Amino acid sequence: METSPERALAAIVARIEPLDEAAQTAARARQNLLTKPRGSLGRLEELSVQLAGISGRSLPRLEHKLIFTMASDHGVVAEGVSAYPQEVTPQMVYNFLRGGAAINVLARHVGARVVVVDMGVVAELEPHPGLISRRVGAGTGNIARGPAMTREQAARALLAGAELVQEELPRGVDIVGTGDMGIGNTTPSAAIAAALTGRPAADIAGRGTGVDDAGLARKTATIERALAVNRPDPRDGLDVLAKVGGFEIGGIAGVILGAAANRVPVVIDGFISGAAAMVAVTVAPAARPYIIASHRSQERGHAIMLEWLGLRPLFDLDMRLGEGTGAALAISLAEAAGKIICEMATFGEAGVSEKEA
Amino acid sequence: METSPERALAAIVARIEPLDEAAQTAARARQNLLTKPRGSLGRLEELSVQLAGISGRSLPRLEHKLIFTMASDHGVVAEGVSAYPQEVTPQMVYNFLRGGAAINVLARHVGARVVVVDMGVVAELEPHPGLISRRVGAGTGNIARGPAMTREQAARALLAGAELVQEELPRGVDIVGTGDMGIGNTTPSAAIAAALTGRPAADIAGRGTGVDDAGLARKTATIERALAVNRPDPRDGLDVLAKVGGFEIGGIAGVILGAAANRVPVVIDGFISGAAAMVAVTVAPAARPYIIASHRSQERGHAIMLEWLGLRPLFDLDMRLGEGTGAALAISLAEAAGKIICEMATFGEAGVSEKEA
Repeated sequence: METSPERALAAIVARIEPLDEAAQTAARARQNLLTKPRGSLGRLEELSVQLAGISGRSLPRLEHKLIFTMASDHGVVAEGVSAYPQEVTPQMVYNFLRGGAAINVLARHVGARVVVVDMGVVAELEPHPGLISRRVGAGTGNIARGPAMTREQAARALLAGAELVQEELPRGVDIVGTGDMGIGNTTPSAAIAAALTGRPAADIAGRGTGVDDAGLARKTATIERALAVNRPDPRDGLDVLAKVGGFEIGGIAGVILGAAANRVPVVIDGFISGAAAMVAVTVAPAARPYIIASHRSQERGHAIMLEWLGLRPLFDLDMRLGEGTGAALAISLAEAAGKIICEMATFGEAGVSEKEA
Repeated sequence: METSPERALAAIVARIEPLDEAAQTAARARQNLLTKPRGSLGRLEELSVQLAGISGRSLPRLEHKLIFTMASDHGVVAEGVSAYPQEVTPQMVYNFLRGGAAINVLARHVGARVVVVDMGVVAELEPHPGLISRRVGAGTGNIARGPAMTREQAARALLAGAELVQEELPRGVDIVGTGDMGIGNTTPSAAIAAALTGRPAADIAGRGTGVDDAGLARKTATIERALAVNRPDPRDGLDVLAKVGGFEIGGIAGVILGAAANRVPVVIDGFISGAAAMVAVTVAPAARPYIIASHRSQERGHAIMLEWLGLRPLFDLDMRLGEGTGAALAISLAEAAGKIICEMATFGEAGVSEKEA
């Protein structure tokens, strides 16, 4: 008897445990022995403690770094919400596979491997050894007219993301980052944020890849219509994803759940990953402490998402590209935080005098 | 006939040229051809244009990365302004040379070489192949009672820093970072900032390595006294350094001038490097566009320094360690910015459709 995707997902969610308190205490104690004034590395120290709690290792060394860049299409582009044509989604997937996109450059820079996943691009993509297919459909429905997908598809998208993390475990996964590609996907992401926060669409909708004032007004109205037509239930993450979400958003939410279930820290990128994180923690509140927010995106509404998530981003470089670019840079910071606690000498080892009483 | 240090310094300052406009224009044009929405990499794009203007190369690849960590002692510790004893300065120098300090860990992480320089530690340091000696004296005078150093010593400190950059050029120097070690050095740094901005000491003095309320009050009063006793001339960078500065602060200011004179970008660390940058741009306003501010330090008054410098830091991770730790992380961001422009595919190369009109 085949298990339903929703039931399989529930089994993964049930495995998410609280962070390891003992490992966190040990990491904090070690930070205080290292040759620096206590707390003087600020958020790198906090990050090292979080990494210890997630992994259960007081010396959290990050060797194997992975970024999931998930692509999909969105029926809502029919409403004229994006500055780019839909054909750009598959074109950019090929760019990822050839290594010429921003995420490839930044992932190489930080020593992370990019896993490119087709979650539901409209165009049929040519097979490629670097392309993983977890298609849930050929693009979502137009959320301005009806649901993006069925509840079963939503569960399949989440499950696919979670299973992808598990499939990578044998190769070693010390940290994962999330990223997206999907023309039009700031619209469903904003709709998810509006549905879950209860804030008006106008507070959350932004210019995405660069729509003009008329485009932004159209986008805001489209999000309002999507919420009115679909009436997503904010207590039910699967319902919100199904009604106004996207396949790659579901895939990313699944990566977050899969990471949390396997005690792997997960660094979220910007606006689209933020919406996915909101879905993930609605489905599984226990996943929240496993999430590291990389940056505050330039996209309007991202700050609202982060506030709702209770996450403080590591940096703000006015970025708004997606793909996992912010996550890549943050993975390097997380690795640095781990190295600090693993590699620095203690006062005793270095023969350095401690602070005067 | 021997040239005076001040004259030799003036010759270096005279070589500082404006940034290369043509290289910046070419870099901006290339950014707009790359497969991403225009401007979507935010400050990484700006940084790539700055790097192009500094180096004169529209494709600014950073291979050789160097961090100067300069150590010295401060007579003002006699006033009880630091939480650590002065013996920690040489102890930390030995820690740098053994590779166990935070700067070593972070420099290794970003692939930068650390150059450790003794600018004037009180204790005589044992010779070490990794230690460069450019001692200007055995610690400065107590600025609460008189000048830190003579004007000739101030010029020698600046010249030493500038010459160190020049000596490294044959090995390849694509970017330099600055860092400091010197028990008590937040006090002269705050005094420099107060002298140059005209702001009261209380707005600028912070807790340094962690003094308590009584220590902070003592420190603030000490800075006020140093300014009253020495009356530094805010139009004369050498005078300010001589009256209320420090040898490592002068060395760092010299690194900044040497970098600018040789078209090398220079990433400044936190509070002490900020004070050094203020001295450097007072001596040579043309050096300013060569400076990249890494982070906003937790040390009170650093934001005032950055505002006076007209520099926007790349990140704020609540750090306040010094040594060049913030600069190291920012060097990685600068390298990433360079790689973006060097390695990303253009719309034409990747066959990706551009934005709709």
